[in-house]
Amino acid sequence: MAHGSRLVDLVHERIEDFLAERTSILREISPDLEPLDAFSRRFLSGGKRFRALFCYWGWEAVGGRGFDPFAEEGGRDKFPVVSAASALELFHAAALLHDDIIDNSDTRRGAPSGHRLFEQLHAESGWAGSSPEFGRASAILLGDLLLGWSDELFDEGLAALPDRDAARTARAEFMRMRTEVTAGQYLDILAERAWRSQAESEQRLRAERVIVYKSAKYSVEAPLVIGGAIAGASTAQFDSLRAFGLPLGIAYQLRDDLLGVFGDPEVTGKPSGDDLREGKRTMLIAIARERLAPGQRRLLDELLGDPELAPEQVRMLQQTIRECGAVDEVEALITSNVATATAALEAAPISRDARTELGSLARAVTRRTS
Amino acid sequence: MAHGSRLVDLVHERIEDFLAERTSILREISPDLEPLDAFSRRFLSGGKRFRALFCYWGWEAVGGRGFDPFAEEGGRDKFPVVSAASALELFHAAALLHDDIIDNSDTRRGAPSGHRLFEQLHAESGWAGSSPEFGRASAILLGDLLLGWSDELFDEGLAALPDRDAARTARAEFMRMRTEVTAGQYLDILAERAWRSQAESEQRLRAERVIVYKSAKYSVEAPLVIGGAIAGASTAQFDSLRAFGLPLGIAYQLRDDLLGVFGDPEVTGKPSGDDLREGKRTMLIAIARERLAPGQRRLLDELLGDPELAPEQVRMLQQTIRECGAVDEVEALITSNVATATAALEAAPISRDARTELGSLARAVTRRTS
Repeated sequence: MAHGSRLVDLVHERIEDFLAERTSILREISPDLEPLDAFSRRFLSGGKRFRALFCYWGWEAVGGRGFDPFAEEGGRDKFPVVSAASALELFHAAALLHDDIIDNSDTRRGAPSGHRLFEQLHAESGWAGSSPEFGRASAILLGDLLLGWSDELFDEGLAALPDRDAARTARAEFMRMRTEVTAGQYLDILAERAWRSQAESEQRLRAERVIVYKSAKYSVEAPLVIGGAIAGASTAQFDSLRAFGLPLGIAYQLRDDLLGVFGDPEVTGKPSGDDLREGKRTMLIAIARERLAPGQRRLLDELLGDPELAPEQVRMLQQTIRECGAVDEVEALITSNVATATAALEAAPISRDARTELGSLARAVTRRTS
Repeated sequence: MAHGSRLVDLVHERIEDFLAERTSILREISPDLEPLDAFSRRFLSGGKRFRALFCYWGWEAVGGRGFDPFAEEGGRDKFPVVSAASALELFHAAALLHDDIIDNSDTRRGAPSGHRLFEQLHAESGWAGSSPEFGRASAILLGDLLLGWSDELFDEGLAALPDRDAARTARAEFMRMRTEVTAGQYLDILAERAWRSQAESEQRLRAERVIVYKSAKYSVEAPLVIGGAIAGASTAQFDSLRAFGLPLGIAYQLRDDLLGVFGDPEVTGKPSGDDLREGKRTMLIAIARERLAPGQRRLLDELLGDPELAPEQVRMLQQTIRECGAVDEVEALITSNVATATAALEAAPISRDARTELGSLARAVTRRTS
């Protein structure tokens, strides 16, 4: 993925430049705002940049241009898509900051989560009041700041796009993405709490809806479509990007569900069985519940979401989920969704380079270990 | 304020229409999202709409047009400013949702705050887990949703504005406002906690900075300037709007500081002495601390921010703050800021109608009781 790595550098550079501009506003206001600056950069320096990659390759799929960031010529027309790709990363950082508060997550990518960083700052500075409260409050505000900034970065890119129809479409897709992912997050936290009062027969449907809105559209379909929109995609091209992106996004999240329960903490940067302690009602869990005998299902329901689960309990739950065949069923779902995505990709009226690159991205996101 | 009330109706209608469109996206996703719809409408149905009024009158000041929303002719060109004014109200609702989580506020405008509404929903539905945690999580998400929507509503207005330079300027001002108010909020929560480790001599300066960024620019100056920008203000007109807006905004917030300590709960919709229990480090408190003898200052510092303050303690603190002359000094500051604002207004190269209306708005916001 040589092209991909170059894009990652371009995105990194664009984010750094943009943050430098924006944090200069903060510095003018007060030196006390330095932590907002430092933590923004920290949260935006890492990550897999999958959303940025999908956005770029959606653009390339339609534009069909070569990609050489070092060439003098043509460097200019990449500005809109690189800005949009970077904006998606900023939006994602904001969403993660809020998500980690919502999930009470201590870590993110193997390092302390945002509210924990502010909590540490509070404790180390010996300030008055509760450190966790200060941590949460500050991380809410930093998330708000980055939400606004992501939008500004997106617009800076679109302002440089001569095709105004393309810009309008791209912006509309970005807006819909924001609404849908926030709705998906609400459905996710609701499912964790309300599942007992919802019909058993609807649990898989509800888990699927969360996957579609919180992950599949957000992480894959929308970035692809936004990239395609910037390049002025035709209806057929939009349809293809969606037909590829949605199933791939579902497969992506199903892989995530498996990693959340079975992932190696050394690789994922999260404690083993993290999703079990959080009580996430994923597709994996919905499928396991369908397959388990009533007694085992009751036990799963009792233990799931207990933040104090002991390592033996985590291992026991992992074994239960595996032995009932839920893991195999999820793996089969991943395989069939990847097959659907791949078939759509083969048939898509898009550039050859993009087809190859999107094919390898599809493998990367569905076979990953972190 | 006949013109003002009509504008309030137009803004209300625009918000209702916009929410109806956006919540139809939610309804397509799942009926489970109904509370996001219901609580959005609830939070946007009330409030004083000061920001919308300042935005409109900033536009009118520069445009100098008459205002008759019932006229067939000319109705179209009000769309951008009415949309922008409505977007400011959406942004404000989002900020309040997050602010109430940050401040642990139970009420807003005499009704339960957003996280308390979701908390009640959780408790009444008998869902699993902690009701307060669900309340906070959902209110964070609803705030995020409204932040995104405010931006979309703002853009819908600007898209209808033929003057593209004006649109760009208005958008830049909106963006700067978002960054500055979020920075101001962080400085505010920081001041509440970090004041003991900060130099005594800087406390008034820090309180002033919070007033300027969290309130004065956000509530008055930015709305005026955004309205002016939409009408294509000249440099001289921008300067005048700022010269009027900033001191008026400071006076507005100083009035708020007094109401937060001395306001009538029946009128403000908040418990008496709310700011004392929250431990807000306002200008009023900074001034009182400068004026009090060391023993009294220590007592104030000890009690301020204790959420369990008894009514007698609140009364005692009110008396201490009044008797040291802090209230008189704040009233004098309000008077002098209003005078500065009024002088700027008299000299401003703006329409006569707007001058009259802004003058009465200035009186309304600085003499209010809630």
